[in-house]
Amino acid sequence: MQTANERDRSTCSIGRSLDVLGEKWTFLIVREAWYGITRFADFERQLGCARNLLAQRLHMLVAEGILTTVPYQERGSRTRQRYLLTDKGKELLPVLVALREWGDRHLTGPDGPPVHLDHKDCGGRVSLQLRCSEDHLVEGADDLVPVAHVSPRSGPDPL
Amino acid sequence: MQTANERDRSTCSIGRSLDVLGEKWTFLIVREAWYGITRFADFERQLGCARNLLAQRLHMLVAEGILTTVPYQERGSRTRQRYLLTDKGKELLPVLVALREWGDRHLTGPDGPPVHLDHKDCGGRVSLQLRCSEDHLVEGADDLVPVAHVSPRSGPDPL
Repeated sequence: MQTANERDRSTCSIGRSLDVLGEKWTFLIVREAWYGITRFADFERQLGCARNLLAQRLHMLVAEGILTTVPYQERGSRTRQRYLLTDKGKELLPVLVALREWGDRHLTGPDGPPVHLDHKDCGGRVSLQLRCSEDHLVEGADDLVPVAHVSPRSGPDPL
Repeated sequence: MQTANERDRSTCSIGRSLDVLGEKWTFLIVREAWYGITRFADFERQLGCARNLLAQRLHMLVAEGILTTVPYQERGSRTRQRYLLTDKGKELLPVLVALREWGDRHLTGPDGPPVHLDHKDCGGRVSLQLRCSEDHLVEGADDLVPVAHVSPRSGPDPL
């Protein structure tokens, strides 16, 4: 029997996600898209990153199906593209919230976290939780059991 | 009144987290530490990354308080360091789970997700959920209201 730390990592979904997203600017572009930014010039102004880097990352995010483009034209200007999150892109919300919560807890300055999230319906404070199908709150990794789906083509992945 | 997409981002916890973690190898080192890897040679073997890059990232993760070092000595060898997750490092679990779930949903091959997580106590399938303090399930970003904490030093941050 293999122990967890000996198993194959080639099918790991964390690794595959980071092949797409494992870079600061990519996450920050997705953050800006969440904030409602859609235009190249506005991404550039908010992020302060180099134009060629921004263009390359936007192109990759479109190619990966995280953003989609919609043409628009302002009076007197040529047609340009707006960038909008796809459903696949919108489903990155838990990743952004998890990063925010960790940053709020460990990296805020003397003013504390700059923002919190409320539930629109009831005003209750919103947070990410690990829950099981029986609706139990899962406190940490010690309460988790990774169950590998062994296939003939690839070994299991433990987490 | 400022709209969300005009507000200052300088205090954003997502940005601060990515200043530490916004790079593929850093996340993958944390993943390996979760899997129980502790020794430089084992990180190197599992990740297949360059030794100098690995050494630099491990050093940064120790400096940021995400990993800590514990000396060990094998018979006939010099004293070396093991790398262990601190509490701050262990609290990155939701970030890894969020990345895993998104990858499971959007990036798996024909075999489907390689693993799932069960609750140790009851065997129920575990997933990340956005919940409010009234225990309502929050389905997506449209159900969230970001509430900025305005300070004299910095503007609010909308998400």
